Amino acid sequence: MPDLSGADFDALYQRLRGQSSWGPADRRGALNHITPGRLAAAAGEVRLGRTVTLAAPLAGSGADNPEPGARHMKHLPGEHSEMAGVSFAADHLMMNIHGDVDSHIDALCHVCHNGTLYNGVMPGAVTSQGASELSIEDAHDGIVGRGVLLDIPRFRGVQWLEPGDHVTVADLAGAEAAQQVRVGPGDLLFVRVGHRLRRNELGPWDVARSRAGLHPQAMEFLAERQVAVLGCDSNSDTAPSTVAGVAFPVHVLAIAAMGMHLLDYLQFDDLLSLCDAAGRWSFLAVIAPLRLSGGTGSPVNPIAIL
Amino acid sequence: MPDLSGADFDALYQRLRGQSSWGPADRRGALNHITPGRLAAAAGEVRLGRTVTLAAPLAGSGADNPEPGARHMKHLPGEHSEMAGVSFAADHLMMNIHGDVDSHIDALCHVCHNGTLYNGVMPGAVTSQGASELSIEDAHDGIVGRGVLLDIPRFRGVQWLEPGDHVTVADLAGAEAAQQVRVGPGDLLFVRVGHRLRRNELGPWDVARSRAGLHPQAMEFLAERQVAVLGCDSNSDTAPSTVAGVAFPVHVLAIAAMGMHLLDYLQFDDLLSLCDAAGRWSFLAVIAPLRLSGGTGSPVNPIAIL
Amino acid sequence: MPDLSGADFDALYQRLRGQSSWGPADRRGALNHITPGRLAAAAGEVRLGRTVTLAAPLAGSGADNPEPGARHMKHLPGEHSEMAGVSFAADHLMMNIHGDVDSHIDALCHVCHNGTLYNGVMPGAVTSQGASELSIEDAHDGIVGRGVLLDIPRFRGVQWLEPGDHVTVADLAGAEAAQQVRVGPGDLLFVRVGHRLRRNELGPWDVARSRAGLHPQAMEFLAERQVAVLGCDSNSDTAPSTVAGVAFPVHVLAIAAMGMHLLDYLQFDDLLSLCDAAGRWSFLAVIAPLRLSGGTGSPVNPIAIL
Amino acid sequence: MPDLSGADFDALYQRLRGQSSWGPADRRGALNHITPGRLAAAAGEVRLGRTVTLAAPLAGSGADNPEPGARHMKHLPGEHSEMAGVSFAADHLMMNIHGDVDSHIDALCHVCHNGTLYNGVMPGAVTSQGASELSIEDAHDGIVGRGVLLDIPRFRGVQWLEPGDHVTVADLAGAEAAQQVRVGPGDLLFVRVGHRLRRNELGPWDVARSRAGLHPQAMEFLAERQVAVLGCDSNSDTAPSTVAGVAFPVHVLAIAAMGMHLLDYLQFDDLLSLCDAAGRWSFLAVIAPLRLSGGTGSPVNPIAIL
Repeated sequence: MPDLSGADFDALYQRLRGQSSWGPADRRGALNHITPGRLAAAAGEVRLGRTVTLAAPLAGSGADNPEPGARHMKHLPGEHSEMAGVSFAADHLMMNIHGDVDSHIDALCHVCHNGTLYNGVMPGAVTSQGASELSIEDAHDGIVGRGVLLDIPRFRGVQWLEPGDHVTVADLAGAEAAQQVRVGPGDLLFVRVGHRLRRNELGPWDVARSRAGLHPQAMEFLAERQVAVLGCDSNSDTAPSTVAGVAFPVHVLAIAAMGMHLLDYLQFDDLLSLCDAAGRWSFLAVIAPLRLSGGTGSPVNPIAIL
Repeated sequence: MPDLSGADFDALYQRLRGQSSWGPADRRGALNHITPGRLAAAAGEVRLGRTVTLAAPLAGSGADNPEPGARHMKHLPGEHSEMAGVSFAADHLMMNIHGDVDSHIDALCHVCHNGTLYNGVMPGAVTSQGASELSIEDAHDGIVGRGVLLDIPRFRGVQWLEPGDHVTVADLAGAEAAQQVRVGPGDLLFVRVGHRLRRNELGPWDVARSRAGLHPQAMEFLAERQVAVLGCDSNSDTAPSTVAGVAFPVHVLAIAAMGMHLLDYLQFDDLLSLCDAAGRWSFLAVIAPLRLSGGTGSPVNPIAIL
Repeated sequence: MPDLSGADFDALYQRLRGQSSWGPADRRGALNHITPGRLAAAAGEVRLGRTVTLAAPLAGSGADNPEPGARHMKHLPGEHSEMAGVSFAADHLMMNIHGDVDSHIDALCHVCHNGTLYNGVMPGAVTSQGASELSIEDAHDGIVGRGVLLDIPRFRGVQWLEPGDHVTVADLAGAEAAQQVRVGPGDLLFVRVGHRLRRNELGPWDVARSRAGLHPQAMEFLAERQVAVLGCDSNSDTAPSTVAGVAFPVHVLAIAAMGMHLLDYLQFDDLLSLCDAAGRWSFLAVIAPLRLSGGTGSPVNPIAIL
Repeated sequence: MPDLSGADFDALYQRLRGQSSWGPADRRGALNHITPGRLAAAAGEVRLGRTVTLAAPLAGSGADNPEPGARHMKHLPGEHSEMAGVSFAADHLMMNIHGDVDSHIDALCHVCHNGTLYNGVMPGAVTSQGASELSIEDAHDGIVGRGVLLDIPRFRGVQWLEPGDHVTVADLAGAEAAQQVRVGPGDLLFVRVGHRLRRNELGPWDVARSRAGLHPQAMEFLAERQVAVLGCDSNSDTAPSTVAGVAFPVHVLAIAAMGMHLLDYLQFDDLLSLCDAAGRWSFLAVIAPLRLSGGTGSPVNPIAIL
């Protein structure tokens, strides 16, 4: 897989941006691909009446989690209560929205490239008070549609893609064929690279330096198919970057050029079992970001319903 | 509405607990009412292809929010980036899981009554390290089923129930009849008391002292109908309590006796418009708690899909 | 007391700034008044061998504390320990550095007026990553010198100054005479307005709107006497502001013009008793800011030693 | 250096506990050694008029800091302000009180051994709401006295003590003789093992597993000399423990048996230069814990004044 030159990347960026045009006031980007008709049709994916999480539990400290979140107890139910007849267990949560292990969604304000956010919004729209444009609140009604899981390690016949390896267009198309599923307009595409399984088996490593992800050119496949959202068990971006002078090229293309929300560090192990049992790789997918006004994203627990 | 004596409440507690028996090892409680068949049938509620949030944005400080959450920026996209070709907006979240304004779900470990949690679990199961039993992780695959909204102020012909007022069995049955919907087994029941609208119109008040909710006896209606989850735009409990010697009687009955997760401080205003437009009050409901191991609940953004 | 016009304030600002000149590279401001000789002399104030706190305990939520800090337990000593022969109590702290109730010190980066921080430093020196100039780390070796307490309510014969009232030059000079003490070069000046006592007696109020403090012109007294630091049991600034078009004029004059660290919301009740018993109003004062690189200030517990 | 058996340790514990008796109601422990006379005499140590920090800056993530604190900006002075004529820089702090890198003081509630805290206080005195006994508030007036620094690597002629090595009674006595200083009643004893220098030179390591500290028997030296407080540039405890069946034996002896506050992870590099220049190793030391009611300790910036 050849690396991309800066000029090649620029051309790719412009091409993808040009295909994502819902007018200058648009703030929803690729979510526009989820039409009511497509959403209603997606409900037809529910047949077994089974649900499964696509998130991993809040992680502790590790090589890929230098600033872990924490959950601290505020009240214990076995202690004296000031209230009659009842005592409560309660806790307090704190966490970074992004990072390299906890499952989360990136808002469209998350990425700035060449001095602009998605659709020409200026980076000054994000201040110490949060994002006045393109925050995660733009998805406050949830993201619901047909989900499709493409399992790249299965297609390749490996346990997982090694850090540094790329998912290519050929991988995506090959997995589609092998799994007998076709990614279509408005779909929520989930691409498994095996990151979580590798982490479970070998323990965490410094993923900021080496990570499997999608090749930037694979984003052309997503644009062509009019994918609404991309989720991955890594953060979709290979490390180190294959593009000269651009770190996180998939983030740049997806979020800044295409207006596509990314779901990072998902967990597909539970879903795999269910898809295997059901003999199909599509489902109703529901993503419910917290309502964090001005937020750059949200922790999420995407739910697949089969 | 007469107040309940302690003895009356005890009898009610025992009656409801007796109707909720899935064996001594059960940790899912009323979620057991959501069978695969019922869940699959609920998908049939999706016709319009529309989604809507049942949560309110993270709230700032107020009379009902003495310990507000906060979202602090970690990086601004307009500032110097150490990475080539890209800069990020990122933030950090901290918040109490419970409280009196942010939309959240209560785990079954949240309430202790008469020295036990749900199903006889000892309160010592919750330590400074979190809940080893009955944490919100027991719902990690999400809660999905048919949702039904009963709008009590609409039934009563008022804007909202005043703080201190109760939703009774007669209100629930009356609203059902008026809205031409029937709450059934495995349903996620959402009861609107108008709390959010009152807050929006009049501003926040000290809800710990005065709040509209359900009368404890109304829980018999929920048990009989085999409701899986109860959500409310208040916290379902009237203040002050109508039961001598028991604060939060609905929390005690729902969580500790019936094993029913509660959704507190939801927001139904957006859903109301959509239900009105659709001419029906049932929908597919999806609740996706964050994966907080040991947690006493989670902030949530429940999504209704019509 | 006449209000100050914008022009009067500008003239006062320029006058005070002109008297505070330690060169363009200076980052310590009025701390320069504390020479080794003065510091060593201040140690002579220690005679009784008694110490006393000038801080108040971390406060809970209140009308003057809409975003309270919190201390959450991480481990309880009575719970199971993974370590042999020992178990620990441990906790986690979170708090805003500034605010209107917790005792803290303001770094010189805290205040921006007319587009600059102290000594012409540009506000862009403070980014989402903190202050690269004028942070509290500039005082990392502590602030130690002779402290003098002027008790204005005692001089006036009242319990406390009512919110909105000003400490004037006449008050400062009068209290000096009454207390038989003279504020001199390098002193840490503590001015009591009775804010804490009023809060203890009447409960917290919305201090952002009404608060006793120093009249802006009183800063001329501090400049003339070469005071090194100003501490107050309010935040030194009267509310509402007496200056047209400038909120927090004392903050602006002290920090931005004079380079003077401010200590806000101290507690002098314990010190009062000790000074009374000792029959004098000067002491060795030690302020030990936490080492928060890039920080805009620090919670502190100033210690007076008599 | 032979390891201690459990029985030897028990005997040492009882011996040291027996020497620390200020009655059953005592909550100050070894702080009782600081009498007013000794404190007043300590002020005589101030001759140069110089101050120096004994703390290190708040640390980022590292092998010895898996749950780092953070300082997040709340307002930037260069952004739009809602206030006339002024804008502020402000931030928010969060951190664990204990841990293996940030300079802090341990309260007497921090350690439980054989089912009790210091002086027979039951561990149930510490709940999710904090410590009702033996919290850091017991030192709210600060800890002030004569400080003495013993530099063990200098005495040994090495850069630092390697992890696992012990400071013995012979080391303490030898350093005293070499430095021509004698530790006496009420002194704040600071023992340098070179931990910070090693960390600066070699980078952080997993100090929970290997760390230089004091040998448990060295606590007899401290008891005999009536030391008030012990501070170290590690946490005073060697790892792995030299005592069979007791982790953190110095913590157990100092805090639980002797009622001695510990200062962990201090930084003596700045102090060393000053002591060298002054030609003496004693000084006035001031420790100002934050006023954290119920707290198990506090971040601190101890100040040495020469």
